[in-house]
Amino acid sequence: MDIRDYLREKRLQMDAALERFLPPETEYPFSLYRAMRYSVFAGGKRLRPILAIAAYEAVGGTDDKIIPYACALEMVHTYSLIHDDLPAMDDDDYRRGKPSSHRVFGEALAILTGDALLTEAFGLMTRSEFVEGVERDVVIQVINEVSGAAGVQGMVGGQVVDIESEGKEVDFATVQWIHLHKTGALIIASVRMGGWLGGAGKKEMAALTRYGEGIGLAFQIVDDILDVEGNEADLGKKVGVDQKRRKVTYPAFIGVETSRTKAIELMESGLSALEIFDHKADRLRGIARFILERRY
Amino acid sequence: MDIRDYLREKRLQMDAALERFLPPETEYPFSLYRAMRYSVFAGGKRLRPILAIAAYEAVGGTDDKIIPYACALEMVHTYSLIHDDLPAMDDDDYRRGKPSSHRVFGEALAILTGDALLTEAFGLMTRSEFVEGVERDVVIQVINEVSGAAGVQGMVGGQVVDIESEGKEVDFATVQWIHLHKTGALIIASVRMGGWLGGAGKKEMAALTRYGEGIGLAFQIVDDILDVEGNEADLGKKVGVDQKRRKVTYPAFIGVETSRTKAIELMESGLSALEIFDHKADRLRGIARFILERRY
Repeated sequence: MDIRDYLREKRLQMDAALERFLPPETEYPFSLYRAMRYSVFAGGKRLRPILAIAAYEAVGGTDDKIIPYACALEMVHTYSLIHDDLPAMDDDDYRRGKPSSHRVFGEALAILTGDALLTEAFGLMTRSEFVEGVERDVVIQVINEVSGAAGVQGMVGGQVVDIESEGKEVDFATVQWIHLHKTGALIIASVRMGGWLGGAGKKEMAALTRYGEGIGLAFQIVDDILDVEGNEADLGKKVGVDQKRRKVTYPAFIGVETSRTKAIELMESGLSALEIFDHKADRLRGIARFILERRY
Repeated sequence: MDIRDYLREKRLQMDAALERFLPPETEYPFSLYRAMRYSVFAGGKRLRPILAIAAYEAVGGTDDKIIPYACALEMVHTYSLIHDDLPAMDDDDYRRGKPSSHRVFGEALAILTGDALLTEAFGLMTRSEFVEGVERDVVIQVINEVSGAAGVQGMVGGQVVDIESEGKEVDFATVQWIHLHKTGALIIASVRMGGWLGGAGKKEMAALTRYGEGIGLAFQIVDDILDVEGNEADLGKKVGVDQKRRKVTYPAFIGVETSRTKAIELMESGLSALEIFDHKADRLRGIARFILERRY
């Protein structure tokens, strides 16, 4: 199967699962549930959950027990987008081609919707029906890594430094720190989640981590490049925003071409980490290449 | 020991534990850690963690393994205060007698600080050194209940309906719904956390839950009453705010005196639930009375 077909199939599977796991709009409090669904179903690539599933398959996982855990990753990711877009933060009016949450529901509900998605992600990972059949130590470890990747030494920390660096003179080490924490950490945690749930051994976990580190940073560099030369219609958001806001990015420091070379190197380093795996890791290999070629 | 001495002793114990568990201000990103500590150490009563500890003691728990879990409750509580105070929400400039987080650190960092405290609470509850010595199923159950109490059918849901009800014609059932979800849920989860970690049986858990329901609602009614006739210096925040903002409260619906009678009834119902316990539940009994008599 072509990797694009795999990504489409898994995206639809994730959409269906999220549809089941999110509270219905017909229940109280309606507005909150409507706002949660609005952002979750705004058309994401579902990259993080798919990475978790592909890593799970790479280490021999075959059943569906990873699905709710993978959905939790998407909920955490969506919460971070909603909060990042807020007027007090990046003040973005559009996300994935649609008005951002606070534009539709107002700031108060947007903040609470983010809070809700983050909180419910932990609720989902500990729901008794989903914990059933998973080693309890693995559930706890996965929660610990997701909260680590989302917290002060992950997404939140990265966003703090990102915002504080806007328009300031910072060094390249700071750019790397922001990228690794803001984007890399949750991508690494996603891949490792698949490993943990699939029963990976130490050597496999180390390889998955190296893979995650490579593609996580490559993903963010490609994001930076797309902001310079991407197509607004493909991306569903304005381009040129980083430069206007004097965001610290790879292209701003080392230029678009060197950034692209760096992204290729990182992807290749990610691929080489997968050498210990057989064909079952082909999805992970395909995703690494997709990340580099993506136009959205 | 007088209940006030117990509360003071446990508060100091919680402060010391939070001091250990929160990242130090001397580490990067400094501003985030400073903001987390600012709000956590702004002088809270630590009621939720102390309720967890007292419930733990009531069912025979004696060691310190509950401490990090109890601290997680305070982190979740503090996050909710920071977000509630935001300009887009209740727009409160003071909290516990000090300028609120967004007044000191700006809106962006205040939002992220709340996000961080919520996230790190789950990280704390799954740290391997603290999971050690606790039944894994209990850890997972406790996380599930904390996220449930904090999420859409808990604090976040309550806050959504609270904000949407301001200045509107709502019925008394809505007021009760808001109070139960916004405040009651986390208080019940706190008491139940103590039960779970202390190895409570079914009957004991049911009794603790009834106790939590009674004092949780009583606590919020007293809060409403204090907003009408409390002392600003004692409370560390402005009074009369609810009425000015046309918040839906108990006094607004049934008057101060009937509200007080209702709070006493609820406390007594909470106390009667404790009848199955011996003297080890005396702290819980004392806290119930303290909640009714409190002036802050």
